[in-house]
Amino acid sequence: MKAYSEMTHEELTALKSELEKAYEDAKGKGLKLDMSRGKPSPAQLDFSAGFLNAISEGDSLLAENGTDTRNYGVMDGIPEAKKLMADIMGVKDPESVIVCGNASLNIMFDTVSRSYTHGVNGHTPWCRLDKVKFLCPAPGYDRHFRVTEYFGAELITVPMTPNGPDMDVVENYVNNDASVKGIWCVPKYSNPQGYSYSDETVKRFAALKPAAEDFRIFWDNAYAIHHLYDEPEKQDNILDILEECRAAGNPDLAYVFASTSKVTYAGGGISAVASSPANLDWIKKSMTVQTIGYDKVNQLRHVRFFKDIEGVKAHMKKHADSMRPKFEAVERVLEEELGGLGIGSWTKPNGGYFISFDSLPGCAKAIVAKCKEAGVTLTGAGATFPYGKDPEDKNIRIAPSFPSPEEMAQATDLFVLCVKLVSVDKLLENA
Amino acid sequence: MKAYSEMTHEELTALKSELEKAYEDAKGKGLKLDMSRGKPSPAQLDFSAGFLNAISEGDSLLAENGTDTRNYGVMDGIPEAKKLMADIMGVKDPESVIVCGNASLNIMFDTVSRSYTHGVNGHTPWCRLDKVKFLCPAPGYDRHFRVTEYFGAELITVPMTPNGPDMDVVENYVNNDASVKGIWCVPKYSNPQGYSYSDETVKRFAALKPAAEDFRIFWDNAYAIHHLYDEPEKQDNILDILEECRAAGNPDLAYVFASTSKVTYAGGGISAVASSPANLDWIKKSMTVQTIGYDKVNQLRHVRFFKDIEGVKAHMKKHADSMRPKFEAVERVLEEELGGLGIGSWTKPNGGYFISFDSLPGCAKAIVAKCKEAGVTLTGAGATFPYGKDPEDKNIRIAPSFPSPEEMAQATDLFVLCVKLVSVDKLLENA
Repeated sequence: MKAYSEMTHEELTALKSELEKAYEDAKGKGLKLDMSRGKPSPAQLDFSAGFLNAISEGDSLLAENGTDTRNYGVMDGIPEAKKLMADIMGVKDPESVIVCGNASLNIMFDTVSRSYTHGVNGHTPWCRLDKVKFLCPAPGYDRHFRVTEYFGAELITVPMTPNGPDMDVVENYVNNDASVKGIWCVPKYSNPQGYSYSDETVKRFAALKPAAEDFRIFWDNAYAIHHLYDEPEKQDNILDILEECRAAGNPDLAYVFASTSKVTYAGGGISAVASSPANLDWIKKSMTVQTIGYDKVNQLRHVRFFKDIEGVKAHMKKHADSMRPKFEAVERVLEEELGGLGIGSWTKPNGGYFISFDSLPGCAKAIVAKCKEAGVTLTGAGATFPYGKDPEDKNIRIAPSFPSPEEMAQATDLFVLCVKLVSVDKLLENA
Repeated sequence: MKAYSEMTHEELTALKSELEKAYEDAKGKGLKLDMSRGKPSPAQLDFSAGFLNAISEGDSLLAENGTDTRNYGVMDGIPEAKKLMADIMGVKDPESVIVCGNASLNIMFDTVSRSYTHGVNGHTPWCRLDKVKFLCPAPGYDRHFRVTEYFGAELITVPMTPNGPDMDVVENYVNNDASVKGIWCVPKYSNPQGYSYSDETVKRFAALKPAAEDFRIFWDNAYAIHHLYDEPEKQDNILDILEECRAAGNPDLAYVFASTSKVTYAGGGISAVASSPANLDWIKKSMTVQTIGYDKVNQLRHVRFFKDIEGVKAHMKKHADSMRPKFEAVERVLEEELGGLGIGSWTKPNGGYFISFDSLPGCAKAIVAKCKEAGVTLTGAGATFPYGKDPEDKNIRIAPSFPSPEEMAQATDLFVLCVKLVSVDKLLENA
């Protein structure tokens, strides 16, 4: 294929009218597809049908330590759920885990909120500070950014690389600016690129020398076990951040978050936070005011369903088998239709829920709008950057999980058509 | 029986040595009973065994509007759960309800936290104010008081009467002091007295003319359907506060909270908040940052188990049948052992989870300590007052729900013995 940039004005004009015709045809198909959010498909949710029967009438609802899960108490989770979540998160000690309700986003929100209202481990509450800055590796997860934006933090974009955030930039901010209080990380199969942080990146995180004693790493290990292939590639086996922080003499530097939202049910899973004893003590101080305890029956249901981490791994293979063809369908269409054209690049993740696509600068919004007009909903352009503003207007997050493989291929066909059309327009406009 | 106050010094001294002997005997029994918290008993939890099977493998998990409860989405609850919670709360319009996670305490905490960080409906966040005061009808619920204490509010004690908080005091504060931002209420079968607010009290609440536009009533209708007798007494059918507020031209004045913690499982129920459209919009603005949605599978499980409010009412009769003998056992022992002695008074609730006991002034702490020493744990004396400090050191909350009726009688036998012993000591000391 000839790269668009090498086409003459005449060639581009001819191509444009051809693409416009194809687009009108596509619109006529009445598509109605959603690639906007990282939602499991109904087929994936069906894998957990047995989960509903994991505890039935007549079964004991006592936890292994004798706790009646039906009653009040045990604020930080039943022991077997701590163990399961520790194994899912890749955290060694179950005692460093607090199991919470159905959403890790809620734990992260509460963690930021607590820092804002009561500070971090005895330091000044953020609401009493003139300025709080938060580092946002981008493209990244919009809901992370919004939490800190909601609490008035200044969001600072840190460039992402295939090895994780640009650590020179991170170190420069964290080690020199005491108003920098945290950083959002999705260390494994990152949202949206599917990148996993290299060992060097994790070690550099653990070895940070923050100017602010209350600086924390928000390590959202959302896709810890969400592989697309049976055996995760070596580079996707990220280091244990808590262990690395301890080894580097920074035991309180990181919070690790995870949930089973994309393991059992997105609407009915369990979530957890893991951290150092000092951090957990501080968290529990506010939790004890906030709640008597989270849903322990659902914690027990998870343990009874999976038995242990091996059960979870076997279950995640089903998810992989369901997701893989969709990712591959998207990648195949992208490669076939856009390969060599020089109008877009994309990631090829080994796990996670997303593919990150970069168009020519200044095209992402128009591509998303074109897709929408023809019935395919994508994540809003810009969403992957702080304040929803992509400075180059080029990143688009593709979420292949929810539609069927056939729908996914249809949607991607339309997507590449829109990429071509908008790119031609842009090149003609710039000519 | 002769009132203790009419006894001579000699009589009291003789009585004291008799009581001390009885107490030593009681200690020898090795009791280990807990009357400290309003926990359902295992027998009560067994009533919900079928709840576990209310959704099983193969059942549809679609809500009535087609929402797949297993997946992300529907932040404010599925329609049928809103309807059920509205009926439980005695709220007319299901659309005025948001269904949340497993604990209404968490909703209340979040509501106070949001007011602190972002204000109420656009008003100045409490964290930017020099002073926030919160009214605490007392004796009341310790966990309420702690939430507002945690956020730095000054807690102001308002006396409780059998008709609800002393409304002269409430009106005087609310209508004149703009730093008064809220009041905690348990309007039905109050914690710990079991009082229900009279129609006049509710109407005076609705007709408040707060000096602060962001003043709100925190109406924790925790025991809305927790009757002890088949037909609730007329005085326990409290008015609908949201309706009364609307009628009084104060539509945004109140938040109503409730949960099924003492209906299905204390460790695995659902909770809800009901309020005006303007208040709900404000709540949703922060909820949309905080979560993608609460556990909808458990919401559906509740609806499938109960079908409707009639199912809930039938279920609550089982709870009543289980609780009533315990309340009556306590009341019988109190009456038989303390009646006419002039050393204590207590409430006789028609519902709820507690009996409120008032000893002679200055005796509550000592009574609780004596009970503890002999193996019966009561709620800490003072807990029912702001900052955990009962100015007269006389109120003790009795929670009869958890022990069996036999245990309850044993525990109460010990309790009355300790009341007598400490009262004699106090009278001798004052003599």
